[in-house]
Amino acid sequence: MTDSPQTDSPQPDSALAGTSGDRYPITPRNRVRRKPDRGRFDKATVYDILDGAMVAHIAYVIDGQPYCTPTGLWREGDRLYWHGSSASRMIRAQAQGLPVCVTVTHLDAIVLARSGFHHSVNYRSVMAYGTTRRVDDPAEKTAALDGFIDRFFPGRSREIRQATAQEIKATTFIAMDIEEASGKIRSTHVSDDEADYTLPVWAARIPVTQVVGEAEPCPRQLPDIPVPPGMQIYRPGRRLDEVLQEAARMVYAEG
Amino acid sequence: MTDSPQTDSPQPDSALAGTSGDRYPITPRNRVRRKPDRGRFDKATVYDILDGAMVAHIAYVIDGQPYCTPTGLWREGDRLYWHGSSASRMIRAQAQGLPVCVTVTHLDAIVLARSGFHHSVNYRSVMAYGTTRRVDDPAEKTAALDGFIDRFFPGRSREIRQATAQEIKATTFIAMDIEEASGKIRSTHVSDDEADYTLPVWAARIPVTQVVGEAEPCPRQLPDIPVPPGMQIYRPGRRLDEVLQEAARMVYAEG
Repeated sequence: MTDSPQTDSPQPDSALAGTSGDRYPITPRNRVRRKPDRGRFDKATVYDILDGAMVAHIAYVIDGQPYCTPTGLWREGDRLYWHGSSASRMIRAQAQGLPVCVTVTHLDAIVLARSGFHHSVNYRSVMAYGTTRRVDDPAEKTAALDGFIDRFFPGRSREIRQATAQEIKATTFIAMDIEEASGKIRSTHVSDDEADYTLPVWAARIPVTQVVGEAEPCPRQLPDIPVPPGMQIYRPGRRLDEVLQEAARMVYAEG
Repeated sequence: MTDSPQTDSPQPDSALAGTSGDRYPITPRNRVRRKPDRGRFDKATVYDILDGAMVAHIAYVIDGQPYCTPTGLWREGDRLYWHGSSASRMIRAQAQGLPVCVTVTHLDAIVLARSGFHHSVNYRSVMAYGTTRRVDDPAEKTAALDGFIDRFFPGRSREIRQATAQEIKATTFIAMDIEEASGKIRSTHVSDDEADYTLPVWAARIPVTQVVGEAEPCPRQLPDIPVPPGMQIYRPGRRLDEVLQEAARMVYAEG
C-alpha cells in the first residue's frame, strides 16, 4: 500500500515560509517527507481534521517505553485538551510536562489498484506536536469541565447534574499548545502505473464512513423527556466527522 | 468522560497468572490500571480487535521525540506486520529495532449520562508492545508482499500485476512479535450514580459504526471485468470491522 505521489493538491512552496498566523511552521519534526504533495500545513485544514474526531491517539514516553493511548480530545484554537483520572499513569506522567504527539486519523476509502504497490487508502490525518501541562488554574479547569461536554453536545453542560467537588478532584485535564502540526490527505482515485491500466484487473475505490446510529435511550430514562435541541445534529445515518465539525462550529462560532 | 468502573465483565483473578499460551502475561507495562474490569488479556479477544482494523497507530521514539503514526497493519499469529517506503523516517528508524506500542481502537458508541463525569464512549482497543525488526529474509518478505494484499482482499495477490524488483526494493516490511498486549472494552449502556437516575435529563447511547460503501470502479476500468469472488465480503452497508475479521478468518482459517 505504498504508492507514488499523487498530484491532487501539491504542497505549495509558500508552505515553506510557514510562520504566519494561519499556517504551521515546517520543521524537521513535522515535515512531510513521504509523499510531500499530501502535506497540509494551513491551520484551517488541520483544524477541520482535528474537529472531526472524538478520539485521538497520543504518543508519549515513560521510562523509555513509548505508549500510544486512545483518548477523547477537543480543540480550542491552537490548544488541545484531554482528560483522565487523576490517578492514571498517563495523566500523572503528562501532568509533569511531556513531549507528545497527538494524532487524529479519518479513514475515507480503500483503494484497490492493479498492482500491490499502488494499493492504498484515502485518509485525512493530523500529527500535532507539543508539550503537555496540567490545567491547574481553577477558572480554566471549570471551563474545561463544561467545554469537554459542550464541544461535543452543544448546550448540554447546562442540562446535566453539575460536577461535585470529588469528581473535579478525581479528574485531571491536560492541555497542549500545538507547537507544530502537519496534516496529510489522500483523496484521489486509483492511481496506477500507466502501463498497468490495460491489465484486466478489477480496480476500484471503496468508500468507508463512520456513521451515527439511532439513539438508544437509557433503560431507566424518565418518561416524556425530549431530545435536547443541541443533540439534533446527531441524526441517524450522518457521518460522525461532519456532526463533530458542526458541533465545533456551533460552539466556537469560527471553526 | 471518566466514569466509574463497570461491572459488565470483571477481569478474572486467573488473568494474573497470565503466561499460558492463550493469554498475554500481565506486567507493569500492559496492566490495565484504570477501570481494570475493562481489561482483556485473552488472545482471542485481542486478536479479534486487531483483526477488525485496517489502520493502527504506532508510537515510537526518535531522538527523544515521540511520534504517533497511522499505519496499515496486519497480524499473523502473535506477529504484527506493517510496511512503508524504505526511505521513510519511521521505517528507517524501526528497521534498526525500536520499542513500539501498536494501538488499534474501534469507537462503538457515544454514551450520554446524567452527569458529565459519567459521559463515556463504548470502544474496543488493544495496546500491543514489542520491538521492531526489518524483514530481511527473502522468503518472509515475499510472503509479506502477498500477505498484506490477501489478508484484506482474499486471493487478490494472484489477480494483480506482480511486484517488480524495484518496487520490492523500495518497500520495507517491519515485523513485531507481540511481547505483551492488553485489550480494553466498554460495551455497556449509560451507567449513572444511583441518585441521578431520577433527574429529568435525557440520557442515551448513540451507536457509531464504520461502514463500507458502494465500490466506485476506476474510471479507466476495462469493460466486463467482474468483481472478484474475494471482494464479495465488501458488501455496501457492512461494518468494516466485521468485513476485515471475516477476511482474516478466510485467509488464516483460525482467527
